[in-house]
Amino acid sequence: MARNNMNISSLCDAIEPDYEKTVFERFRRQKFIHFIGAELLRVLPGFCKLQLSDRENMAHDPTGFHPGVIGALAVCAGECAALSLLPADSSLATTEYKLNLLDSAEGDVLVAHAKVVKSGKTMTVCTSEIYVRKDRSQHLCAMALMTFVPG
Amino acid sequence: MARNNMNISSLCDAIEPDYEKTVFERFRRQKFIHFIGAELLRVLPGFCKLQLSDRENMAHDPTGFHPGVIGALAVCAGECAALSLLPADSSLATTEYKLNLLDSAEGDVLVAHAKVVKSGKTMTVCTSEIYVRKDRSQHLCAMALMTFVPG
Amino acid sequence: MARNNMNISSLCDAIEPDYEKTVFERFRRQKFIHFIGAELLRVLPGFCKLQLSDRENMAHDPTGFHPGVIGALAVCAGECAALSLLPADSSLATTEYKLNLLDSAEGDVLVAHAKVVKSGKTMTVCTSEIYVRKDRSQHLCAMALMTFVPG
Amino acid sequence: MARNNMNISSLCDAIEPDYEKTVFERFRRQKFIHFIGAELLRVLPGFCKLQLSDRENMAHDPTGFHPGVIGALAVCAGECAALSLLPADSSLATTEYKLNLLDSAEGDVLVAHAKVVKSGKTMTVCTSEIYVRKDRSQHLCAMALMTFVPG
Repeated sequence: MARNNMNISSLCDAIEPDYEKTVFERFRRQKFIHFIGAELLRVLPGFCKLQLSDRENMAHDPTGFHPGVIGALAVCAGECAALSLLPADSSLATTEYKLNLLDSAEGDVLVAHAKVVKSGKTMTVCTSEIYVRKDRSQHLCAMALMTFVPG
Repeated sequence: MARNNMNISSLCDAIEPDYEKTVFERFRRQKFIHFIGAELLRVLPGFCKLQLSDRENMAHDPTGFHPGVIGALAVCAGECAALSLLPADSSLATTEYKLNLLDSAEGDVLVAHAKVVKSGKTMTVCTSEIYVRKDRSQHLCAMALMTFVPG
Repeated sequence: MARNNMNISSLCDAIEPDYEKTVFERFRRQKFIHFIGAELLRVLPGFCKLQLSDRENMAHDPTGFHPGVIGALAVCAGECAALSLLPADSSLATTEYKLNLLDSAEGDVLVAHAKVVKSGKTMTVCTSEIYVRKDRSQHLCAMALMTFVPG
Repeated sequence: MARNNMNISSLCDAIEPDYEKTVFERFRRQKFIHFIGAELLRVLPGFCKLQLSDRENMAHDPTGFHPGVIGALAVCAGECAALSLLPADSSLATTEYKLNLLDSAEGDVLVAHAKVVKSGKTMTVCTSEIYVRKDRSQHLCAMALMTFVPG
């Protein structure tokens, strides 16, 4: 039974009271994500928002964020969104992810919004939208679709 | 007309004499790839081999290489393979990539082998196989399929 | 420049007056789609809705719509959505598509909603959501992400 | 433990003696695949070959096989390859598949070759290569990467 079909009250019953703390802790343990300097901005049940500001070290040639780092941010955001709906001690493995680059990735800050589209016992599927911020505007630069399983 | 349908002699005519030097130069300009410490080990026409050894900073929680860094290595390897078949001044943009994680990514070194499966005027498609080396053995831990366009 | 960044008035200027007729005509010419009995229900600029009712012939074993037919419906819906934003004589080739099966596909009718997430000169990217209807309820059973190029 | 890491003798021990018969029976039960007229040509452990000859009904506009039918053939071939390595009564669900169209799909016959790249308890991952035959030659027109889970 997919959680996206549950009604609001049953979803609220199922959410762990400490989900936010859990996701922040799990996020901090990801060494690679710490290494690239990504920050976890927000967690809600089935939703997560990450940010990455180091455009110097994260660049492709000649400018713009590297497709590899955009994918890494997308999959990390998806994983945090997935964890927000699971018991605190759940282990999660990434099965696969797919990223489409939609537009220029030139800018100062990358922001990833991930949401769970299906959360079940055997599988969680998430989407991520990645925006790039430049000066005072931002635009959608990539979309991702990904699968996690209990690991 | 896809280059994978060309015969050997016409392929040899089409390869730039300096393709190897070109790919190494283009690789060096990718700041993110330099940042994570990936090395370009080998370039052949339509083929490329990369390596990444910093398992400390590249880790997921608790161990094993992070899916985001595996994808980044896979797409960088694919791009180098694609560039090896194009004129030296070609610019290339990543359209999309898809990574399947097949097995444990625990080990000391990641190695990506990429090859071009179609090289045409409007699009290059590559596959990458990513191996993880531990002690004296290695196993396939991920596969990727990706598209590049003139950018 | 991606069309998803255009404001409403400039988008309205760019839409062909006969886009709906064009998409219906192009849809009718797709022999395979006719063969499986899919119907085009609705076209709006950058959006399309298809339906498939023949659950007998479209089944996997033992029941439920076949993943292959779900993907075919998803990609056809995406193509129609893409065509709605292009000049009437545009030719379009599918570059790639990716489908995630989220939930049971058992039911009587498949409905695909596709929308354009980026429409540019060199590439159109769409998403499709596929619902399965059973009795009086429906649920999301699959999501797809896909790329088209001028062909 | 992935089966692609097993040595030959342990693989042979694990293969069901009736795998070929099982796969043919399971193939025959897929109503949609029967409806489009695909034939199962060959099954080996971890490998499968399918063929589709009805270019009239399977066409896109104006000619060439429809991307939807290419994907359906690819995923059906992958499923048969996956089943060849599993116990006879295993049920298998498709989690996701991704298809890249590489070249023209104009021709008389589509042939899909699928192979298992990882077969484990919780997941099977396969690749498919799809060729189109015209007159006396054939060329690679698409590649797919896909995941199945016990269902």
